[in-house]
Amino acid sequence: MVKQQNEVIEKIRDEAGGVYGKIRRKQKPQMKLPIRTLSNVRYRPSGGYLQLRGKNKTRTLTVNTVKTFAQTLKMLAMSMELIGSDRHSTKREAYYQAYNWGEASFASQEESDTVMDDVEAMLGVNRERMHFRADEHGGEVAGELIVVDTDRRTGRRLEIDCTRFGSGAYSVPTVVEELQFKTQAKFLLAVETKGMFERLVEEDFYDKHHCILVSMGGVPSRACRRFIRRLADEKKLPVHVFTDADPYGYFNIYRTLKVGSGNAAHLNEFFCVPQARFLGVTPEDILEYKLPTHPLKEVDRKRALDAMRNDPFIRHHKGWQQAIERMLKMGVRVEQQALAKHGLEFVAKTYLPNKLKASDRFLP
Amino acid sequence: MVKQQNEVIEKIRDEAGGVYGKIRRKQKPQMKLPIRTLSNVRYRPSGGYLQLRGKNKTRTLTVNTVKTFAQTLKMLAMSMELIGSDRHSTKREAYYQAYNWGEASFASQEESDTVMDDVEAMLGVNRERMHFRADEHGGEVAGELIVVDTDRRTGRRLEIDCTRFGSGAYSVPTVVEELQFKTQAKFLLAVETKGMFERLVEEDFYDKHHCILVSMGGVPSRACRRFIRRLADEKKLPVHVFTDADPYGYFNIYRTLKVGSGNAAHLNEFFCVPQARFLGVTPEDILEYKLPTHPLKEVDRKRALDAMRNDPFIRHHKGWQQAIERMLKMGVRVEQQALAKHGLEFVAKTYLPNKLKASDRFLP
Repeated sequence: MVKQQNEVIEKIRDEAGGVYGKIRRKQKPQMKLPIRTLSNVRYRPSGGYLQLRGKNKTRTLTVNTVKTFAQTLKMLAMSMELIGSDRHSTKREAYYQAYNWGEASFASQEESDTVMDDVEAMLGVNRERMHFRADEHGGEVAGELIVVDTDRRTGRRLEIDCTRFGSGAYSVPTVVEELQFKTQAKFLLAVETKGMFERLVEEDFYDKHHCILVSMGGVPSRACRRFIRRLADEKKLPVHVFTDADPYGYFNIYRTLKVGSGNAAHLNEFFCVPQARFLGVTPEDILEYKLPTHPLKEVDRKRALDAMRNDPFIRHHKGWQQAIERMLKMGVRVEQQALAKHGLEFVAKTYLPNKLKASDRFLP
Repeated sequence: MVKQQNEVIEKIRDEAGGVYGKIRRKQKPQMKLPIRTLSNVRYRPSGGYLQLRGKNKTRTLTVNTVKTFAQTLKMLAMSMELIGSDRHSTKREAYYQAYNWGEASFASQEESDTVMDDVEAMLGVNRERMHFRADEHGGEVAGELIVVDTDRRTGRRLEIDCTRFGSGAYSVPTVVEELQFKTQAKFLLAVETKGMFERLVEEDFYDKHHCILVSMGGVPSRACRRFIRRLADEKKLPVHVFTDADPYGYFNIYRTLKVGSGNAAHLNEFFCVPQARFLGVTPEDILEYKLPTHPLKEVDRKRALDAMRNDPFIRHHKGWQQAIERMLKMGVRVEQQALAKHGLEFVAKTYLPNKLKASDRFLP
């Protein structure tokens, strides 16, 4: 953990040292940043995520850039301080702390968020490692996992056993960089809703199948994605994803978890989960399990067609194209809770076990 | 716990027995339900919540009501089954299970939700006790509290120590009816955002002030409100609430937590937290702590004026009227994170300790 932090401090020192050196030599200091627009994004299955093509922009210190230039350096200094005091700051707290920067303070939080994104892209590390955090829900965990954290008060190692929370769960913090893991689980199952998560806990699913359950609560947050990624990497765990059968479940949830999103491509490297495979619900399940459906809305149809045309991940995978075409042809969407038609325990006792037996049929 | 469940089962048997008896005597069976509209709501400070005035409607079995009548009885039967099998069903799962009710199945989930609300109001218990649950986030907890739950797999008692989650937290389940508590804490502090919650955890706030921290994550969910209510009742704990100084923080978050909401008045009895007092942020704090502000938006202004005119809780409390008038006059709102202007630790080391010393100045 200490090593990780030193890496970030070194990167900050390098960047600041470069600027300082140029100024000492009476040259114009510069900073180089990757361009963060969709046109600079591509999907490489080998990398496993939507990534930047590598185009950079250079920010040179001039009369016009002086304010942003100063803000960028102050933001780096704030990160150094945070690491030094072992504190984390939300984006909003960072914005308010910058009230004391005199002429370099921000006119709005959008401005400070942009500078934070710049700094993140410039250093090539996710901002959580710079001790900045998002103010969002990190997902919930239950199952065969021990999370190893540190007790701040004593500095002692703390083992958090995720089988011992009864009907409750472990709530993932917004910064997961320093967590460690102990597990014998066979796989991780990430589910769309808290309702389905609690269903599976209630049916003793993780006990019977030796797995870890994660509730994403809709589109997974940065913390939730990073948690799954780190855990899957370090413990070589397969990640199965279980969402509704609709464009929102497919693209906004599954695609985001697996390969990241287009508008934060400088981050996907840290947040993607290339191990993820889509278990269900699929359009095939509608027929196989005679599930109650809802008609696709116009917005669903548009989202699906748009993904077929423009989403590099979908365009790369024939399996997804076929699934989407089938969904559009059938004209319906299905919720994962629809399985309750066959009884509350059906999902845990029949549907998921059937799926797990045929994992080669999971969508990529 | 078993006693609680028996109470609900008895209520269901009474209701169903009444219907059955009438039918046997060849009379038209009836069900009596409280009317759930704003016109039937009042605020009584002695009761501590927005409550129904007591007007009822009677549903008699006729050709026109036969479907709803059947659905209501089937919903009661489903609850009996759930309690018997010690399972809980989300509202959505209940809707899908009802697919097997033949002619009594629902056309949409809105229909089944309405029948569930009816049943809840009719029996006068919250639906969690009937083993129905909402699919929502229950809030997060850290601090001097041991939650006592049951391990489903062994039936054994499980003690969950909320000081042992490191940077993470205990995630409250959607049904908290059967949880028990052990604590020596002096108070409970409910905060608006996860960011502020993590700030206070990071500053060892609960350790130094012997308290329990709860992150509501915006407007508190049913589970979060019920959790705080049960805990505060059973352990005689004061509840302090810490939100932004804006109409959303005052009415949507604080007012909902304390007295409930107008459109679910048949439930406020179970979900209100009469112990709650508003610690801050107040309009006075802006001047006292020289906090950075944002101008009130038109929607804020409208919400505030509407509350002054129509909200029975606000109309009852002069302290709140003065605070709102002051806010409108100043024309600004403040976020709780604005305290970070004075350093990240300021909120934990200065602001909150100052407030706690003058708890008689909390808003009602």
